[in-house]
Amino acid sequence: MTQTWQERAEAKRSSIIALIPPEWRITDPPNDQQLDVTGSYIQQFLSDNEIQITESTAEQILKNTHSGRWTAEEVTRAFCHRAALAHQLTNCLHEIFFDAAIASAKELDEHYAKNKQPLGPLHGLPVSLKDQFHVKDVETSMGYIGWLGTFEGRKNTGKERVYESELVRDLRATGAVLFCKTSVPHTLMSGETVNNIISYTWNPKNRALSSGGSSGGEGALIGLRGSVVGFGTDIGGSIRIPAAFNGVFGLKPSTGRLPYEGMANSMDGQNSILSVLGPLASSIEGLRVVTKAVLGRKPWLRDPLVVEMPWREEPEEEKGKMAFGVLRSDGTVNPQPPVRRAVEMVVKALKAQGHEVIDWTPPSHKTIMDETLKTWAFDGGADVKGAFALSGEPMAEQVKLFGALEKEFTGSEMAAVNVRLRQLKKEYMEYWNSTDKVTGTGRPVDAVIMPVAPFPAARPNGYLYYGYTGVVNALDYTSVVVPITNVDSSVDKVDEGYQAIDELDKAVHASYDPQIYHYAHVGVQLVGRRLQEERMLAIAEYVNKVLEKSS
Amino acid sequence: MTQTWQERAEAKRSSIIALIPPEWRITDPPNDQQLDVTGSYIQQFLSDNEIQITESTAEQILKNTHSGRWTAEEVTRAFCHRAALAHQLTNCLHEIFFDAAIASAKELDEHYAKNKQPLGPLHGLPVSLKDQFHVKDVETSMGYIGWLGTFEGRKNTGKERVYESELVRDLRATGAVLFCKTSVPHTLMSGETVNNIISYTWNPKNRALSSGGSSGGEGALIGLRGSVVGFGTDIGGSIRIPAAFNGVFGLKPSTGRLPYEGMANSMDGQNSILSVLGPLASSIEGLRVVTKAVLGRKPWLRDPLVVEMPWREEPEEEKGKMAFGVLRSDGTVNPQPPVRRAVEMVVKALKAQGHEVIDWTPPSHKTIMDETLKTWAFDGGADVKGAFALSGEPMAEQVKLFGALEKEFTGSEMAAVNVRLRQLKKEYMEYWNSTDKVTGTGRPVDAVIMPVAPFPAARPNGYLYYGYTGVVNALDYTSVVVPITNVDSSVDKVDEGYQAIDELDKAVHASYDPQIYHYAHVGVQLVGRRLQEERMLAIAEYVNKVLEKSS
Repeated sequence: MTQTWQERAEAKRSSIIALIPPEWRITDPPNDQQLDVTGSYIQQFLSDNEIQITESTAEQILKNTHSGRWTAEEVTRAFCHRAALAHQLTNCLHEIFFDAAIASAKELDEHYAKNKQPLGPLHGLPVSLKDQFHVKDVETSMGYIGWLGTFEGRKNTGKERVYESELVRDLRATGAVLFCKTSVPHTLMSGETVNNIISYTWNPKNRALSSGGSSGGEGALIGLRGSVVGFGTDIGGSIRIPAAFNGVFGLKPSTGRLPYEGMANSMDGQNSILSVLGPLASSIEGLRVVTKAVLGRKPWLRDPLVVEMPWREEPEEEKGKMAFGVLRSDGTVNPQPPVRRAVEMVVKALKAQGHEVIDWTPPSHKTIMDETLKTWAFDGGADVKGAFALSGEPMAEQVKLFGALEKEFTGSEMAAVNVRLRQLKKEYMEYWNSTDKVTGTGRPVDAVIMPVAPFPAARPNGYLYYGYTGVVNALDYTSVVVPITNVDSSVDKVDEGYQAIDELDKAVHASYDPQIYHYAHVGVQLVGRRLQEERMLAIAEYVNKVLEKSS
Repeated sequence: MTQTWQERAEAKRSSIIALIPPEWRITDPPNDQQLDVTGSYIQQFLSDNEIQITESTAEQILKNTHSGRWTAEEVTRAFCHRAALAHQLTNCLHEIFFDAAIASAKELDEHYAKNKQPLGPLHGLPVSLKDQFHVKDVETSMGYIGWLGTFEGRKNTGKERVYESELVRDLRATGAVLFCKTSVPHTLMSGETVNNIISYTWNPKNRALSSGGSSGGEGALIGLRGSVVGFGTDIGGSIRIPAAFNGVFGLKPSTGRLPYEGMANSMDGQNSILSVLGPLASSIEGLRVVTKAVLGRKPWLRDPLVVEMPWREEPEEEKGKMAFGVLRSDGTVNPQPPVRRAVEMVVKALKAQGHEVIDWTPPSHKTIMDETLKTWAFDGGADVKGAFALSGEPMAEQVKLFGALEKEFTGSEMAAVNVRLRQLKKEYMEYWNSTDKVTGTGRPVDAVIMPVAPFPAARPNGYLYYGYTGVVNALDYTSVVVPITNVDSSVDKVDEGYQAIDELDKAVHASYDPQIYHYAHVGVQLVGRRLQEERMLAIAEYVNKVLEKSS
C-alpha cells in the first residue's frame, strides 16, 4: 500500500505533465544536441499571436489589457501554452493551474466589460510564482516529496490547498493572473535547481548548464518567455543567480520592503539574515510595475515585518553625473573571463557617458561571508533533515553539506554572530560613506557594479561559490541584476597563465570551458544601499539603456 | 593592593559626589520623613533664574536660546546645579561632566555670537543620557563594578573614554549640551533602578518608592527637572515605566527608527526583540523636538539598522473623530485602583470630546509575554553572569532570576520562538485591522489606551509584572506615556472584596497601600502601530490637552 518515495515522486511528476493539454504536448522532444531551446526553437510550437503576446514586455501587455485591445484570457492562454512548452523543455514547473488562471482571466474580462476599466494596475498580467508561495487549490512542495499532500510538511492543518500567502492575495487584488508555480532545489539552499520530483531544471539557452537557483524555475521560465514576470526569493542569491543565468532582470529588495508573510520557507525563524522576495522579469519596467503595485496595497498593514514605505517616485532625468564603484574580484574567487568582460562592458559604457567609476575596495567580503555561512547552520541542519526524513528521499549532491551539519548553535554563539554582522554592516557603511572623498560628484558612489557569480552559468553540480551574492544579503542591500552579454567562445578564451588564489579558485577557473559555455548569458548586479529599490531600478534602467546604445 | 568590589564601588560613588562643586552640596540632607523632594523642596536650593530656566519646557528653552535671550551657558549651569541636587536626593546619576558641558555651552554661545544663528535645532538644550551611551572622556559602567575602567567590560580596547555612540554625535551636531549620565539597574533588566555603585534610585515624588527602571535615573532626574529631556532605552518597558513613575512623558519608538548604533547593552546580539532608544521629557514637544532633530541627521546613513524614514509631519487639526481601544486589564494582572482610575480619566475625557472608545479584546497578551520572556533567556544568563563575574559583586534581588538561568537555547529553539513571535504579531495586526468594523470612523482604532504597569510606582523589590509594557516591545509598536494623575488616598481605596486571579495577581493587589502611594504619579500609555512615532506624538499631545481641559 505505502508508496516508496520514488513512486510518490513519479506520481507527482506525471500529474504535472497530465495538466498540460494534449495539444500543447511536445510529441517529438528535442535531442541532447538541441542545447538552445529559446527563440525560434520554442516559437515553432506557437502561433504568431501567441508569440507576439508572450514576447511583449509587462508594460506592453498592461498597455493592451488596460486599453481593452487584448483580453486577459488571450494573454493568459498564450502564457499557459508557452509555460507548458517551457516545462517540457527544461523541467521548470512544480504546479500547473492553467484552468484556474483562465477562469480568473475571464472574470477580469467581465469586470472590464462591465466597468470599462481595469481591476487594478496589473489587470490581466500573468505572474508566475516560485514554489514557496501558497496558492489556493494548489500544493506547495518546495521540492520535498514529504511535503506533498501536506501544509509545509504537516497534515490536517486545515490550511492545505486553502491558505494563500500575503503576496498572492496582493497580486490577485491588483488584477494579476496566477497560472503556475516554478521549480526550486529542495532546501532552497542551492544555486542550481534540483530535486527528486522534477529532477533538474535546465538552462533554456544552453541545456547543458544550470538555470541557476534557488528560483531556477522562474529563471528558466522567464528566460523562455513562458512568463513575463514572476516572483522568487533570495537569501544568498536565489533571485539574482537565475536572473543572470537566464538573461533576465531581477530585483533583490532589502528586508521589510515586500511582504514575505505566509510563505513556505527553509529554516524559518532564522532571524539573522532573512530571505526576501522580489520579482524577476524580462524588463526593468516589469520589475517596477509589480513592485509598485504591491506597495500600493500597503502591505505593512498585513505583514508585521514590512515597513511603512510607500513607493517613492524617482525624479526623472535628475541624475546628472553619477559615480559607480566596481568590484572586479572579491579576492576569494576571481570571475571567469566572460564575467570579467561583462563587468568591463558596464564600466566602459558608463564612462563613455561621462560617469565616474572607481575601484571598490571595501572591508573584507570574506569576513562577511564567513559570518553569513554560520547563519545557514544555526539549527545544525535540523530543519532540512526533518523535511527529508518525512519521505526518506535522498539529498541532492548540491545540498549535502546541510546533511553533514551536526551541532546546533547556542544562544550565546548566535548572539556573537549577530553582533559581528552588525559591526560588519557598520564598517561597510562607513566605507561607502567615505567614497564621497574620491568621487567627483560630492556624494558617495551611487551604486556598485559587481559580478553575480564567478561563472556565467553553473555546470551541473558546479555552483561552487556564493560570495558575490551572499554578501549583499548580509548587508541587506538592494540589488538589481541586468543582463549584459553572452559568452562568445571566440572572445572569452581560457586565461592560460592563470595563477589561482587557492583550491576553490582553481576549481572555479578550471570549470570554465568556452565551448561548453558558448552563448550562455552573463549578467551583472548593481548594488545599492538598504531599501533603495526605486533608486536602484532607475539606475539599472539607465545602465541598461546606455548598454543598449553602446552595443 | 587589589581592591574589593566594595572598595571599588565606594571609590566610584565618592568620585561622582566629588564632581559636584561644594556650593551645590546639600549639607543638611532631608530625613526619611521628607518623601517628596520635588517642587518647593528642591527649589529652596536654587535661584529664581535657575528655577525659571529649569522649569521651562524644552520648547521654551529652545525659543530663548535660538533668540539669544538665554545663553547656552546659563541654561547649562542651571541644569547642572539642579541635576547635582537631584542626585543627592535620589541617587540618579552615574556620571557627571558639568565642566565639559559648560565648555560646550560656551562654544555654542561663541558660535551664536559669531554667526547670529543657532548651531542646530537643539542649540543650547541640555540633554541627559542613560548610562548606556558612550560619551568621550566619560566612563560607561551600566551599573557593573566590573565595567569601571573598561570598555564594556574589556580593557585596552582603545575605545575607553574616547568612543561615542551614534546618538551622542547626532545630539552634539544639532547643538545639544550633554552634561550627565543617569543611573540604571545592573543588567538593565528591571523595573527598578538598583546597583552596587549608586545603590537605589528613589522616586523624587515619594522617596519610599522606586523611580522605575531601567531608565530610572532619567525618570527621577527629569521628574525633579534636573533635566528637561533625556534619552533612555526600552526592551520591556524601560522608558515607559520611569516616565509613568515620575510624571513625565516618554516615547518608545519602534525598532529601526532611532540610532542604537554604538550603545552599550545587555545580551547584545539577542535579535528577536530589540531594545530601542527614545526620549523622556517634561512635555510632548520635548519628545518631538529631539526626535525630529535626530531624524534630521539622516541616521540611516550611519546606523545600519535604521530605516530611511525622515520625520513625517502630521497634518494639523485633520484628525476629526478618532477611535480608541481601551485595555482595562490584560487578564493576567489587574491594575491597582489608581491605575484603573487614570485609565478611566482618559476614556472619559476622550468621550467628552466626541471620540469613540471601544473595549480592546486582542489576542492573548499572556501568550505574547510567554514568548517574550524566552528571548530574555536565550543565552541562559551567560552575558549578565559574565559581567558580575568581572568583579565578584552580587546581583541585586531584582535581577536574581538571570543568575538562576542555566541552559542556553539552541538554534532550533530560538527559531521556533521567532516564528511564534511573528505569528503573534500577525494575529494582533489582524485584530487591529478588524476593529474598523466596530469603530464609527470607518478606520481601525487610532490608538490603544493601556496601563504602563499595574501599580503607580513599585515599592522596593516590588516590580512584579512586565506584561503591560513587554507586549508592546514584542509587537514592536510605538508607545507614548502621558502623565495622568496622582494617587489620592481619599479616592483610591483598597478594593476590599477583590477576587485575585492567581498568586501573582494577589501579590500585586496586596502591595497597594493608599497611604504609602499617596501622591505617587500615575501615567498611561497610548499605543500605536509600528513606526507611528509622529502620529502617536500628535495623538498623545491631543490626549494631554483634552485631559488638561477636563481637569
